[in-house]
Amino acid sequence: MNVNWNEITHVTKVDPAEPLPSDLEVLSGTDLVIVGGSDGVTEANTLETIRTVDAAIPETPIFQEPYRSSHVSKATVEAADRLSIAAVYNGDRSHFVGKHVDLFTEVGRKPDELLGSGLPVVGDLIASKGVDAVAELADSLLGEGYVVQHLDSAAAARAGVESTYTPEEVAGAALATEAFYGFPVFYIEYSGTYGGPTDVEAAARYLEETTLFYGGGIDSREKATEILEAGADAIVVGDCFHDDPETFRETIPDP
Amino acid sequence: MNVNWNEITHVTKVDPAEPLPSDLEVLSGTDLVIVGGSDGVTEANTLETIRTVDAAIPETPIFQEPYRSSHVSKATVEAADRLSIAAVYNGDRSHFVGKHVDLFTEVGRKPDELLGSGLPVVGDLIASKGVDAVAELADSLLGEGYVVQHLDSAAAARAGVESTYTPEEVAGAALATEAFYGFPVFYIEYSGTYGGPTDVEAAARYLEETTLFYGGGIDSREKATEILEAGADAIVVGDCFHDDPETFRETIPDP
Repeated sequence: MNVNWNEITHVTKVDPAEPLPSDLEVLSGTDLVIVGGSDGVTEANTLETIRTVDAAIPETPIFQEPYRSSHVSKATVEAADRLSIAAVYNGDRSHFVGKHVDLFTEVGRKPDELLGSGLPVVGDLIASKGVDAVAELADSLLGEGYVVQHLDSAAAARAGVESTYTPEEVAGAALATEAFYGFPVFYIEYSGTYGGPTDVEAAARYLEETTLFYGGGIDSREKATEILEAGADAIVVGDCFHDDPETFRETIPDP
Repeated sequence: MNVNWNEITHVTKVDPAEPLPSDLEVLSGTDLVIVGGSDGVTEANTLETIRTVDAAIPETPIFQEPYRSSHVSKATVEAADRLSIAAVYNGDRSHFVGKHVDLFTEVGRKPDELLGSGLPVVGDLIASKGVDAVAELADSLLGEGYVVQHLDSAAAARAGVESTYTPEEVAGAALATEAFYGFPVFYIEYSGTYGGPTDVEAAARYLEETTLFYGGGIDSREKATEILEAGADAIVVGDCFHDDPETFRETIPDP
């Protein structure tokens, strides 16, 4: 499925380890679903979540955002529209570059295994098949440049974030994304708390080709509007999707 | 100047702190000149080198590859065709992401100063002028994903490289460049010693859109040919350009 970034204003983050709401009709106004999490997440519950959501809203793109490569399989890659991978600017070396090179080294080393092709091929055929499989995977990959701005969050702990960025540094990371790393998404993550419009305003100034996501603590129409008016292309709503469908519905802008 | 990557097979790395050969005619077969270095390099000798080389071979693109932001000015940005910035995969955090975010933070904070526009403008005008100046700089920027494979080199010491990559890791970094970070250049740097074709073969397998540079110890036609046949798009020749024009000439492939 083609992803039309210009049409994405509301994103729902779905944690495969959490129960889905009984009525998925609530998703009908969202523009993109991102499936991912860490504690309790497996390849199996990821795949089941992607398939259930896809059955409910088949026209809406779904990304898998894996935290471990063990959450990814040929089945999840085929079920999701993209494999989105976070690179955390203010995290440790591993979470910006180290684990990505490890992942790609692993992909390059055993592309057939990773993509589930068990054909008994040898020599040049393995080589060409392998490269094709890798190219297929590469096409579905999408990088997200993250800034994690809530120190007391699981996301910060996981990515080795020891300090948050000032608004000027957020702007610098946004500019680095736009002009240097070229990730299609720049993501300001306040994970569980509401960060307000300041960082969004700082980043939005420098983003033209890059899509700006803001996530964290959005639990009302007012907050959703404030962040979008500050220049975010889309708000990402997670917690209340699982907990409180009525509040979730309020965060979806009118069409 | 547009850079036609398909026409670049031979690259000359020129150190502004080293004397230029008396006859720059020797550069006539090279396809790209990269001006940069660390010890003894200043903005002034960088600018002078770019201008001297440009006068000798006006049709050939010239990149400035700065090690410090103090080597960059509005004048060097205008004199060179691109500002190429290395991100070192196997270096420390700073040399892959930290110093780049710092640089872009600085650019975002005082774009006018960096680009030399001293007009007394205020309010929204500063804002819009600033953003335009930043956009202009961003257009000239070019990222290079580096792997530094010679531990006993100044390049390794500078970038905090503590171990070299195996050929499989070189392939992983190449794939990460192609599929994730999207730098236009992947650069295998053996800095001062000849690394042979193994890493080049490993990386070339996964690079389609990315241009593959190899640099280090190329001082003969045989070595140049070996690296190009292993799959490098271009060889980078530095030391012998300054020291030994006859040897340098030998490294330039026949047209």
